[in-house]
Amino acid sequence: MDQDSVEQAKKTAAILAVKETVKNNMVIGVGSGSTIIYAVRELASLVSKNGWQIVCIPTSYQAKGLIFDHKLPLGSLDQYPVLDVAIDGADEITSELSVIKGGGGCLVQEKIVGINAKNLIIIADWRKVSTHLGKNWTQGVPVEIIPEAQLPLILKFEKMGGKAALRQGISKIGPLVTDNGNFILDVDFGKINNPEKLSSQIKSLTGVIDSGLFINMVKKAYIGQKDGRVEIITKE
Amino acid sequence: MDQDSVEQAKKTAAILAVKETVKNNMVIGVGSGSTIIYAVRELASLVSKNGWQIVCIPTSYQAKGLIFDHKLPLGSLDQYPVLDVAIDGADEITSELSVIKGGGGCLVQEKIVGINAKNLIIIADWRKVSTHLGKNWTQGVPVEIIPEAQLPLILKFEKMGGKAALRQGISKIGPLVTDNGNFILDVDFGKINNPEKLSSQIKSLTGVIDSGLFINMVKKAYIGQKDGRVEIITKE
Amino acid sequence: MDQDSVEQAKKTAAILAVKETVKNNMVIGVGSGSTIIYAVRELASLVSKNGWQIVCIPTSYQAKGLIFDHKLPLGSLDQYPVLDVAIDGADEITSELSVIKGGGGCLVQEKIVGINAKNLIIIADWRKVSTHLGKNWTQGVPVEIIPEAQLPLILKFEKMGGKAALRQGISKIGPLVTDNGNFILDVDFGKINNPEKLSSQIKSLTGVIDSGLFINMVKKAYIGQKDGRVEIITKE
Amino acid sequence: MDQDSVEQAKKTAAILAVKETVKNNMVIGVGSGSTIIYAVRELASLVSKNGWQIVCIPTSYQAKGLIFDHKLPLGSLDQYPVLDVAIDGADEITSELSVIKGGGGCLVQEKIVGINAKNLIIIADWRKVSTHLGKNWTQGVPVEIIPEAQLPLILKFEKMGGKAALRQGISKIGPLVTDNGNFILDVDFGKINNPEKLSSQIKSLTGVIDSGLFINMVKKAYIGQKDGRVEIITKE
Repeated sequence: MDQDSVEQAKKTAAILAVKETVKNNMVIGVGSGSTIIYAVRELASLVSKNGWQIVCIPTSYQAKGLIFDHKLPLGSLDQYPVLDVAIDGADEITSELSVIKGGGGCLVQEKIVGINAKNLIIIADWRKVSTHLGKNWTQGVPVEIIPEAQLPLILKFEKMGGKAALRQGISKIGPLVTDNGNFILDVDFGKINNPEKLSSQIKSLTGVIDSGLFINMVKKAYIGQKDGRVEIITKE
Repeated sequence: MDQDSVEQAKKTAAILAVKETVKNNMVIGVGSGSTIIYAVRELASLVSKNGWQIVCIPTSYQAKGLIFDHKLPLGSLDQYPVLDVAIDGADEITSELSVIKGGGGCLVQEKIVGINAKNLIIIADWRKVSTHLGKNWTQGVPVEIIPEAQLPLILKFEKMGGKAALRQGISKIGPLVTDNGNFILDVDFGKINNPEKLSSQIKSLTGVIDSGLFINMVKKAYIGQKDGRVEIITKE
Repeated sequence: MDQDSVEQAKKTAAILAVKETVKNNMVIGVGSGSTIIYAVRELASLVSKNGWQIVCIPTSYQAKGLIFDHKLPLGSLDQYPVLDVAIDGADEITSELSVIKGGGGCLVQEKIVGINAKNLIIIADWRKVSTHLGKNWTQGVPVEIIPEAQLPLILKFEKMGGKAALRQGISKIGPLVTDNGNFILDVDFGKINNPEKLSSQIKSLTGVIDSGLFINMVKKAYIGQKDGRVEIITKE
Repeated sequence: MDQDSVEQAKKTAAILAVKETVKNNMVIGVGSGSTIIYAVRELASLVSKNGWQIVCIPTSYQAKGLIFDHKLPLGSLDQYPVLDVAIDGADEITSELSVIKGGGGCLVQEKIVGINAKNLIIIADWRKVSTHLGKNWTQGVPVEIIPEAQLPLILKFEKMGGKAALRQGISKIGPLVTDNGNFILDVDFGKINNPEKLSSQIKSLTGVIDSGLFINMVKKAYIGQKDGRVEIITKE
């Protein structure tokens, strides 16, 4: 039943977000994760109902699969370097719209798509909302890295006060490999007081491709509540 | 307790295999998986006890990590294209020494190392032994493929009587990515009557890199038994 | 002037091939190379003139770029596992429609697309036609390989009578890296008497992904002549 | 003859740098490029003459090949996250020891190795010395990027005053692919007045892995002169 209300919250948030932010002729970034599935379904229904012409830019193999399954038109940043909107999930989000992403391992493509969208919209259920990043999401900030830099970066993060663990593959032996062929370090910094500064510090490190800290990027979040409502957070 | 006897069987088989097949000055292929850990420990102990000069060639990121952890000398096929021996695990093995590998997702590197070894030795516990490939190991033959060939190959395997499933990432969303940046199809052919023919057919397909069928490659297997003995199977 | 007649021959062959083989509503594989540029232009002109609905499946980053530049609809084998036609160039072609491809380094994707097309059509100029593979094209059969298998495969090809050279990067130091992240060996077997047998032998090697030998795959070739005519070779 | 004096200058600088900076038991980063070849030869001669125990960490496939060819012991950052010294070439260098690297396409691995060395030493001939970065080296700052971010980044660099060109493969059709499977943009910013600021700006961009600007990293440079002398530049 609790799982039901979570799924219901994801769904309601996704549907409202799509309804309010997507219009005909838009180029749309499609995020990754379990909440996005509801958004893609709603997109597909709008397109077939209204005969809309849209283009979908995926953020992962999973997103590409969703786009194909719903027979939506696939596009690429090589054709559409500026997106009208991108809709994505989150692992943790604050009322200032600071976000941790990357639990699903696709943070680099998600950030590339998100940063090139005029509007980056987050959809999530109430459990993802937190007063500080690192409070609810305790498995660490996901950081995509060049494999050979693994050990030097683990030592560097230690000096920065973070405890880094190389994410394992589970369905393969050894480390997880990302869609880009890289590794992911999950770096636990505890409760993060200054996410903007931390995000810059991490990105500046040689061997780091990007982190799952999405700061000053999100314009609006649709948060599905336990009671069925959707709370909308906007950047004032 | 049963788990204990399994671990004991792996360990006993690994130790005996290393003792009987590894000598000073050898170039040794190091397989992947949980049984290999015991083999690497025994290798490290022999090296430190006897002051041996050996070189270890890894078959995966995991194997490389094991080699480093035990301070064994790392080598590469670029320097040592012919190995004296390679020791590896198995997901299923018959009395004819036909083997299925790839549950851990490193089958291509394991095959490259194994085929370039004068002796490929398998270590496993009794549960891996089967009268026919595909009987005990029911999750299908692992096949590493170029990602874009995924759907055409699924259709081709269907025509060959195999049911192919794209292996998922679990610790990432979407498909598992191999150490080589590719995908894995697990193709269920049921009980395999002619593994040599099937192996050739799969390898011949465009988009396939290699399969986990190791046929006519293994010279000897050390099988740890429930009762503590090690059964040795050799190719007559 | 000679260069002019070569370009004219490529262009005439490409235009005729597109006119004769492409129809409305087709899913079309787009090859790589310098001749393909003329085919894509003709495709774009047909689509805009006739309002055709087609989908284009690229065989390389270059092909993808061409599809985007001409605003043709991009597709993927994940959606369209069976293509109506694929049009591609060749480095050498015989009257039996045996072909060497891979001078441009995209042979694996070209083969995946070509083998999944109902018709694989080659377009080329007269200089590519030869009585035996390996006669005109003397830089060797391109073979895409897993990087770590490089030296064992060079030794294996030697035993098979081939002289293998690792293709260098030129605009980068060290070996060329393919679009799939692999290496290419150019293996000189001299004049090839039995291309079908050689193709199977190469593909069967562990560490090989595929070779540039396209045997029993091509249905028709359009060969632009020096005098402006186009010779059509078909498989009887 | 001029080419002779260039090669002589590279060689003399390389030999002196190795003599002055390498000692027994060191872990040494081995750069990429044409000047490095002389350094590796000198290393090999010191090792064989003195029976030194050293470990070499490569920065590219090319460096790995050099290490193997000279039978030097290969190591990895996974074992040796801190190097005693790294020796590398440069495409352009100023008297402040600001450097452009990446003409050979291996800038990311070179930076990972260089930044984890206690001393990063540059060896070069006199033609590489310049008063400002971007003055002699006019083909642009090499920047390794995630392939899908190509067009958004070209547009971003334009806004920053840079003209970005996607580096082509030459020995393959389409873009150059790096040893990490990525693309390289060569971004022409003209004469660079504030390389430190530019370096940070570029690194901070989503989709960028790293740039060839090496600022505040180099401790010492050995510059072979036309007249046979070696000029040493140190950071005061």
